Formats: sequence, structure tokens, C-alpha cells
Amino acid sequence: MAELKQSDWREQGKPPTLFKRFAFDSYSQTRAFLDALAALAEETGQHPQNINFGTTYVNLTLDALDGKTLGDTERAFAARIDALVQGS
Amino acid sequence: MAELKQSDWREQGKPPTLFKRFAFDSYSQTRAFLDALAALAEETGQHPQNINFGTTYVNLTLDALDGKTLGDTERAFAARIDALVQGS
Repeated sequence: MAELKQSDWREQGKPPTLFKRFAFDSYSQTRAFLDALAALAEETGQHPQNINFGTTYVNLTLDALDGKTLGDTERAFAARIDALVQGS
Repeated sequence: MAELKQSDWREQGKPPTLFKRFAFDSYSQTRAFLDALAALAEETGQHPQNINFGTTYVNLTLDALDGKTLGDTERAFAARIDALVQGS
């Protein structure tokens, strides 16, 4: 089974959330990531609980779908978000 | 002289920033506002210092261009952001 690369997502809070900061060299890279993320949300129907960004960074918080426990669905979503960066 | 409608932008912090929370009924409305805001930033070359959003809200922070004082340029940008909502 493929291992999901998401070691840099941090589990925090109660109820638990997954948090990660993405840094970019330019606003256009940041913008491309945000657009890809919006398309992914459209496709999956999953939305980050919070997206916090400036010109060269994006902080993402993912919450548990059931409001209580982070499981495979949330971690798979996190891995797909990571993949957006590789592909940009 | 036209009065800029921006009474609900809050000046806060040191150095000073302008802050406002926008609430929406749906994610598609939130998305439309964010897309319009990105287009406005593209047009003006002015970017909010921080954009913090979830499915139905957007919190915006605008900083002073000179890092010290909020002036007409920042307030005009705030007014144009307000206008995006009327138009969406």
C-alpha cells in the first residue's frame, strides 16, 4: 500500500484538526495553488475548515468530517492537497 | 466629494491595519467574492496583507502601503472591495 506523504501535517486542537503551512516564492505560485485547491474542493466536495493566506503563504486547517475523529478520508484529502504543490 | 462607504472597516494594531469580516450565504458566493478580489488585486497591484476564509466567510486585513500610516490609497482599496460585494 502506498504510504501517504503527510508527515508535515500537524494534528492539533480539540476537536482535532490537521494544520499545515505552505510557502511559495511568488504571488502567482500562491494563486495557482489556491486555484488548484478550489478545483479539488469542487471535485471532492471536501473543503478546508479554514484557509489563511497572504501573497507568499497559505495556512490550511482541515477538520474532522464527523466533528470528532480524523480518519483516512481527511488524511487522503491532505495527501491530495500535498500533490497539488508537486504538480504546480 | 463622494463619501467612501467603509465605516465597518476596523482600524487596529500597530502598525495600523484595516480589518473587515464578510459573511456569505453559500460557498459559491464566497468563491465569487474571492475570485473578484483576486481580479481586483491583479488590476490594482494591491494585495490584502491577509485573507482568512472558510466556506461562508472571508476576513480581510489590509496593511499600510508605507508600513506606517493608513491613507486614501488603502481606504479607496477598501471601498473597492466593498463594491465587489454589491456587484456579486
